[in-house]
Amino acid sequence: MTRAPEVVAGVDIGGTTTQVALCAEDFGIVDRLEVPTPAAEGGAAMVGAALDCVRRLLDRTPARLLGVGVGAAGLVDARAGRILVASDSFRDWAGFEVTAEVERALGVQAFLDNDVNAFLRGEAAAGAVAGEPHVLGMTLGTGVGGALWLHGALHEGPHGAAGEIGHVPGFGELPCTCGGRGHLETLASGRAIAARYGERTGRSVSARRVAESALLGDADALAVYEAAGAGVAHAILITAGLLDVTTFVIGGGVSRSWSLLDSSIRRTLATEPPVSGHPVRVLPAGLGGDAVAVGAAARVWAELRKDEIRPTTTV
Amino acid sequence: MTRAPEVVAGVDIGGTTTQVALCAEDFGIVDRLEVPTPAAEGGAAMVGAALDCVRRLLDRTPARLLGVGVGAAGLVDARAGRILVASDSFRDWAGFEVTAEVERALGVQAFLDNDVNAFLRGEAAAGAVAGEPHVLGMTLGTGVGGALWLHGALHEGPHGAAGEIGHVPGFGELPCTCGGRGHLETLASGRAIAARYGERTGRSVSARRVAESALLGDADALAVYEAAGAGVAHAILITAGLLDVTTFVIGGGVSRSWSLLDSSIRRTLATEPPVSGHPVRVLPAGLGGDAVAVGAAARVWAELRKDEIRPTTTV
Repeated sequence: MTRAPEVVAGVDIGGTTTQVALCAEDFGIVDRLEVPTPAAEGGAAMVGAALDCVRRLLDRTPARLLGVGVGAAGLVDARAGRILVASDSFRDWAGFEVTAEVERALGVQAFLDNDVNAFLRGEAAAGAVAGEPHVLGMTLGTGVGGALWLHGALHEGPHGAAGEIGHVPGFGELPCTCGGRGHLETLASGRAIAARYGERTGRSVSARRVAESALLGDADALAVYEAAGAGVAHAILITAGLLDVTTFVIGGGVSRSWSLLDSSIRRTLATEPPVSGHPVRVLPAGLGGDAVAVGAAARVWAELRKDEIRPTTTV
Repeated sequence: MTRAPEVVAGVDIGGTTTQVALCAEDFGIVDRLEVPTPAAEGGAAMVGAALDCVRRLLDRTPARLLGVGVGAAGLVDARAGRILVASDSFRDWAGFEVTAEVERALGVQAFLDNDVNAFLRGEAAAGAVAGEPHVLGMTLGTGVGGALWLHGALHEGPHGAAGEIGHVPGFGELPCTCGGRGHLETLASGRAIAARYGERTGRSVSARRVAESALLGDADALAVYEAAGAGVAHAILITAGLLDVTTFVIGGGVSRSWSLLDSSIRRTLATEPPVSGHPVRVLPAGLGGDAVAVGAAARVWAELRKDEIRPTTTV
């Protein structure tokens, strides 16, 4: 009799899509499902959609579920497993007790991370920057997120708020969704790319459509991606200057148009090299859209290993 | 017979002034001397001037010298005790073997730190931020320097180049001494304050004179300090956003006009609060012009304590 393989579920609750992956201990994805995020229906519906996916996956894939990791948009209390602050597009999400709800529904341990921290954990565990000790991760999605990996661990900061490279000043003067002005998010998020293109052309199209136009030589679309890439390069220069970090991994939907971003980032870095003189490496996410789910799963495996070790050190 | 007290010498080799302090183990300054830095005469003359100060101090103050710490402007190899890169105002300084020269001349152990790292070590040991675990230190002197204190230790970065908040983009468009553009140094260094005031008024005066004029209500001088303080506030917002660091200590000659800077920093932070919502504390250097010398001395005491401990752990 063969025993069902042990897996954990990694859940990525994004602004538009929720993805659930069953992951083995080597971070390999055993099976996955993707559904639209019912963001307008509130926290219970959002977690409910993720739980449905986990159940459907376990119905069709024989496996023993050891735990669930959730990567969620917004500011989270990773210790309490609760959402602290969420954008307006998520209804009844701030304050939602994510891990308590998952544990009640599935009867296994659950863990919550900010989705950008989960993204970077995934890329550092099994993606483009696997094994790197110092990395800044950026996600160019609906918004712009950031996370820091220093000395081989997440640097979450004294209040758990580190990594917000998308919302620091110095990137022009445009108003930002956060209420500030001149942030990277006004240049390099999917929403910003669509908005900047709309301002130039009067046309209302998605960031992906802007990318397609840019690849066909549309000068307005090229200018919008050029500004996005230059903004990302400035974020790289800020991080390299302040922290001497020289490895960068970039994910999120906008990064799928990598050739457009990459050429603009390279042009800016060639004109303005880091003050230290040390060259930087800028890599697209190696796990594609799976990074958050894999990182959320990696958190679970890391916590389970801690539990395994604990008895032998305390007994 | 009373034994001479044990001291270390902390040396601050700045762009214009070299300061030497004899420090006790509690970081108290036993005696001090200040001389002009012979920057145009080369590395041997600069270290020679510092050594003369140490000898004169030991002649007039009965003490047993245990070691020498040097804080020096420029990029240094703290491990090899050598200057790596120096500004053009220092002749024959890049490549100079500082600790070897001091050890040969005085027969005691010597250590070299970047002067801004030494400044922050001094403030974190015995100054305005004593005991704080996470701090960004900025020095507004001839140039703008920065250093990072994370988890109670200097974060020097993988290549020893961290802390360069004075030379990251996002602070306007003015050309910087480093060859870049739009850096904090173009707004908040002493040289920049004098230059920006000169551009507005046609008058060539020192930053200190600009501060005196500002305090008398000179609108041009006030505008120059306003821009300097706003720049410092943006550096604070960048650091708070990226690292979630909320404690800042500011030194260097320009920070002596604290009332002017402080009011501008506060105005900017009131308009643009950190994205995390966590308030920041911004403090002027508590050790005044002594911070680099005290920090250089603190490095020596820390290294001597390591030596004391080593035999008991290895024997």
